[in-house]
Amino acid sequence: MRTNVVGVDMGGTKILSAVIDAKGNILGTAKVPTKADEAPSVVIDRIADAIQKAIGKSGVNEASIEAIGIGAPGPLDPATGVVIFAPNLGWRDIRLKDELETRVGIPTFVDNDVNVGTLGEHVFGAGQGVQNVVGIFVGTGIGGGIILQGELFHGASKTAGEIGHIIVKAGGPKCGCGTRGCLEALASRTAMAKQFQKAIKKKKQKSIVTELTNGDLRTIRSGVLAKAIRANDKLTLKIFKKVTKYLGVGIGSIVNFLNPEMIILGGGVVEALDDTFLDNIRAAAKKYALPNTLDGVQIVRAELGDNSGILGAAALARQRSEAR
Amino acid sequence: MRTNVVGVDMGGTKILSAVIDAKGNILGTAKVPTKADEAPSVVIDRIADAIQKAIGKSGVNEASIEAIGIGAPGPLDPATGVVIFAPNLGWRDIRLKDELETRVGIPTFVDNDVNVGTLGEHVFGAGQGVQNVVGIFVGTGIGGGIILQGELFHGASKTAGEIGHIIVKAGGPKCGCGTRGCLEALASRTAMAKQFQKAIKKKKQKSIVTELTNGDLRTIRSGVLAKAIRANDKLTLKIFKKVTKYLGVGIGSIVNFLNPEMIILGGGVVEALDDTFLDNIRAAAKKYALPNTLDGVQIVRAELGDNSGILGAAALARQRSEAR
Repeated sequence: MRTNVVGVDMGGTKILSAVIDAKGNILGTAKVPTKADEAPSVVIDRIADAIQKAIGKSGVNEASIEAIGIGAPGPLDPATGVVIFAPNLGWRDIRLKDELETRVGIPTFVDNDVNVGTLGEHVFGAGQGVQNVVGIFVGTGIGGGIILQGELFHGASKTAGEIGHIIVKAGGPKCGCGTRGCLEALASRTAMAKQFQKAIKKKKQKSIVTELTNGDLRTIRSGVLAKAIRANDKLTLKIFKKVTKYLGVGIGSIVNFLNPEMIILGGGVVEALDDTFLDNIRAAAKKYALPNTLDGVQIVRAELGDNSGILGAAALARQRSEAR
Repeated sequence: MRTNVVGVDMGGTKILSAVIDAKGNILGTAKVPTKADEAPSVVIDRIADAIQKAIGKSGVNEASIEAIGIGAPGPLDPATGVVIFAPNLGWRDIRLKDELETRVGIPTFVDNDVNVGTLGEHVFGAGQGVQNVVGIFVGTGIGGGIILQGELFHGASKTAGEIGHIIVKAGGPKCGCGTRGCLEALASRTAMAKQFQKAIKKKKQKSIVTELTNGDLRTIRSGVLAKAIRANDKLTLKIFKKVTKYLGVGIGSIVNFLNPEMIILGGGVVEALDDTFLDNIRAAAKKYALPNTLDGVQIVRAELGDNSGILGAAALARQRSEAR
């Protein structure tokens, strides 16, 4: 019986794949480098390889695999499985679904990585049994996904869930997308790095982050931020106060607008920090949401961590193949 | 056969009711004053009276009425039909559905007025056949409604669609809700009136609006704004430039986040102005939405005007009574 699926988490540097049973147990995993500088077809060969390796390690028969799910960087078309544009892979209009099905011979379903992460939390993590969920992932950027009536919501242009580009402060700092004041431009790790650079390099402020990064403030890892907070570093605390405020503004807007039952916070920054951070975000959201609108809304931490990609992709494979 | 419904539009000053057939034809209407200073039970007597009058005028048999729909000021619970709080009526926890069913003996369904307006546009107006629609009504305040998969979406606390309280400019002007920088605080008629007051009274700027309002700038009617724009009044054009910008920011955020197929703009301000205003809003939204996200999204004008309340309430009556 075809009871297992393969979930693939496709990142800019590594490809994770796993065989996962109906209960979400991980039966076998494989990891290969992405090597995104090589041709897309070679990268897709390597995805196929990672899938075969995971099946081999799991010990299950390949015939037991019902479907493959892949979370890939987007924008992409979840219906056709075409990756429209993935800057960190250098991909444009790559027929990922078709190419993989040709190589592996198993029905394959593709969705974007943050959608897949949100779906994973809905099926196997913090959002189990909750019908309307918004996932917010804070890392280098801020991404998100929307689950409505238990299913991923894609929207008219398949771009729903671009939570990082809710405008929270019109006229605010420049965002990578070209406009100003997006949530991502105020509360992502990239936004924080810019604030550190400005404070330390221009304003000559002292911070433990300078030592922790050996003075390279271009990208600051979540672990460094966590350490600096634990060390009560004044500048870091100040920057996080702002970050928390703007996450609260964004969540307040989402609660006022969509009023979902649950908001799940994940991503590197959230994972690295303790529950005080979450409490502060909740308090900030309360300030910006209308009275009573937060009553039915839980704001919780993502539960799947590094496995959210493969588990979400497994959930995608199962949902989409059952819907056929 | 029970083929007709009654739609009731309950406002702070007047109650409109209409008998409406399955195709949305209005067969008979009645209008009575709300007289909200009287006891809720007396006001509800008057709603019952308006319903009977509309049935009488329509010439249909009362037995042909399948259900009654009411759009009422909220927050309210659409499941129980209890109006939780309606400041402009002075109502708290009024069992509107039960009270009316007792008086009229016809199944009655209640939802909030902007939800009902959005549903009306979806069933009889600009949003016919469109599955995912966001309605935005710009008047004294800014209200809205969300249609997902063809049905009103209420959310966890039944407050979904509070579009006026999306925060578009954190730290911006104070909003009636207690926070700052909400869309309503930047782009509603109340927000505009404040801007006129500040410019005219404090900064002594000249504007035709001073004459058109006889100097009373506390509330400025939509018709006055339309006249001032047609007269190319400099201050009015300047204020509208800002209003358009912030509506664009709000719509951009909605498009980035939910990516609905259609955004319907209605309410007194939108109705009073010509299509240039809509074009300007579209252009502003394009500036704030991510590239391509607007591709599948139509931004259109509401079509039902003053009838949106009764037609939406009729649609509500039909949907809810069929779903029972």
